Amino acid sequence: MRNDGHGERAGKGGDVTRPGPGSPLGLYRVLAPAGVLPQAAWRLDAGPELWPDEVRVRVERLNLDAASFRQLREATGGGAADMRAAVCQIVAERGKMQNPVTGSGGMLTGVVEEAGPGSPLGLAPGDRIATLVSLSLTPLVITDGLAGWDGRSEQVPCQGHAILFGRSIATVLPADLPGPLALAVLDVCGAPALTSRVVGQAALAAGPGAVGPVVAVLGAAGKSGSLSAAAARRAGAGRVIGVVPGDADAATLRAAGLADEVVITDARDPVALAGAVHGAGGPAAVTVVCVDVPGCEGSAVLATADGGTVIFFSMATSFTAAALGAEGVAADVTMLIGNGYVPGHARLALDLVRAEPGVRALFEARVSEGAPGGRRGKEEA
Amino acid sequence: MRNDGHGERAGKGGDVTRPGPGSPLGLYRVLAPAGVLPQAAWRLDAGPELWPDEVRVRVERLNLDAASFRQLREATGGGAADMRAAVCQIVAERGKMQNPVTGSGGMLTGVVEEAGPGSPLGLAPGDRIATLVSLSLTPLVITDGLAGWDGRSEQVPCQGHAILFGRSIATVLPADLPGPLALAVLDVCGAPALTSRVVGQAALAAGPGAVGPVVAVLGAAGKSGSLSAAAARRAGAGRVIGVVPGDADAATLRAAGLADEVVITDARDPVALAGAVHGAGGPAAVTVVCVDVPGCEGSAVLATADGGTVIFFSMATSFTAAALGAEGVAADVTMLIGNGYVPGHARLALDLVRAEPGVRALFEARVSEGAPGGRRGKEEA
Repeated sequence: MRNDGHGERAGKGGDVTRPGPGSPLGLYRVLAPAGVLPQAAWRLDAGPELWPDEVRVRVERLNLDAASFRQLREATGGGAADMRAAVCQIVAERGKMQNPVTGSGGMLTGVVEEAGPGSPLGLAPGDRIATLVSLSLTPLVITDGLAGWDGRSEQVPCQGHAILFGRSIATVLPADLPGPLALAVLDVCGAPALTSRVVGQAALAAGPGAVGPVVAVLGAAGKSGSLSAAAARRAGAGRVIGVVPGDADAATLRAAGLADEVVITDARDPVALAGAVHGAGGPAAVTVVCVDVPGCEGSAVLATADGGTVIFFSMATSFTAAALGAEGVAADVTMLIGNGYVPGHARLALDLVRAEPGVRALFEARVSEGAPGGRRGKEEA
Repeated sequence: MRNDGHGERAGKGGDVTRPGPGSPLGLYRVLAPAGVLPQAAWRLDAGPELWPDEVRVRVERLNLDAASFRQLREATGGGAADMRAAVCQIVAERGKMQNPVTGSGGMLTGVVEEAGPGSPLGLAPGDRIATLVSLSLTPLVITDGLAGWDGRSEQVPCQGHAILFGRSIATVLPADLPGPLALAVLDVCGAPALTSRVVGQAALAAGPGAVGPVVAVLGAAGKSGSLSAAAARRAGAGRVIGVVPGDADAATLRAAGLADEVVITDARDPVALAGAVHGAGGPAAVTVVCVDVPGCEGSAVLATADGGTVIFFSMATSFTAAALGAEGVAADVTMLIGNGYVPGHARLALDLVRAEPGVRALFEARVSEGAPGGRRGKEEA
């Protein structure tokens, strides 16, 4: 069987366009099982020839999500050779980097090699881009055995190629921001975009001249949390309450100046959290959950006013715990599954980092610490 | 240790009010672990003495959720004696009927025995009620060993008592509807209420004179699905598309007259489902997911128009699959976690059954079939 994703149609390694209109969802790339979307597929065709609406990217770096990275490290012991072999084997078998245990992927950066004539993404050869869809649905071939990776970081130097579909999302990396910083921002850019929309709607509903809505951000000193706090304020929040688990994060958040009130409490303790948020000017009209530990659903619901909204960004959110938890306390709150895609999300997040020195300083510290990726991975509390 | 939930404070079995203001969330009933909400607790104090804001109910019937029932049947083999022993042991150990494997519970019916002077629920001794919060957070004592249960139905005749907190939800059973019918309706009453709200908002946003929004209901021939379809039409839907998995459900749904279009397709097949909904007048402005099989997240997203809303009621919904799935196809859809509590939900659902002969006929057929409970359990596809 072919393990390199090329097969008999590889030809000269690209610039061969496949016939037909293609599928914006990448359905023709699904090898097994039949009929599912690429994310749900066990195996994708990662061959380099493009359908007319596809784009091929020369990969420079994979950014594994932290849940997957942790699982691989625990399963292999973490040695460089074993880590490389594990990732290469997954990609060879599946045609994508989707950890079969965690189901998760990550994102990648690279340079556009070829854009099909029907691609709607507006990319041109030579563009340096980051993908904003998960690696778990992105056809990928690795050609260097990951020789440049020491196995100790989620950031994986990588040679090979990846395919973007017509409906994939990618963004050109900004020239004015360091690559690792931009990557960290883009990884969580859905959070500030959706926060901005929801808070803006709440401010609009309150009417002109009214005090803006109270917004609580759980995990406000993290990457998605700090961006969400900044976005909330710009969207018209009357008060931003930042919730953090300890003194160090509180100091970070205060230094960044992103919250009107900083409270220290365990977000898994519903009574303590609700009390703290109420004491800081709550309950919240909008609560944003960016703490990636399980068990925060009840806390978020209790911290939110009747008629308010909880935005769950944390990938540790349990659908059942949220649904039955709100019902269990007769809380009339709207609960949103944080969609990682909102039109304009990349630009909004990058602009926040450019305009808000507090956000930028916080991100630079997080990036230099090597904190794990956020949205498509897991964010540390 | 006390296994009957009474202990040394039981006194004469009631009419002893505990001191203090009580806790509307039932926090004082949590024995272990400390500090969590009753639903997250391992063990509750189910003693009959009330805090001033509590209500004690003489239990008549437990309605186990289907996921829990199935697990118990598989674990015990399903014999009456073993099933009774299994449920009695859980309740004795935990002070509530929360299946430790599935985490789920069910609901109950009974007669109010005593209402504390500070109870806000408006209940009086003698009221025959159904609880609208999960058994997984309801203090419960069983006194008859479930002698009247044959172990073959989720409906469990039961003697004992249960406690309602200040913020628990319960409703007086209607005198004009058979008990099993009312119970089945109340079990899923959050679905039509939230559907009504979301569709009503979409109709309002479309403006006066505009054609109402297209609504797709996945699993429209089921209990929560049929109520949601009826609620959508009353809230101003311009077109209701009912999606069902096979011919029998299609016939049922057509006979009930609840959908403008009935389409037969597998809700787990995103391409087929999206194609069918588009062909029937979609994409949908609002998609309601009432099919309780895993793997419908991508389908629901693809069937929904940009700017539209997906309401996930199914307890089989995966938070991660929904979040990453929408992002993966660049779908700007709002995704709601179906909150089982919406003010007025019980009345709205019962009124729909009274007013819509199609809904009533469908429910009567489902109830006589012994179909498993919905919202707080699992609904069959």
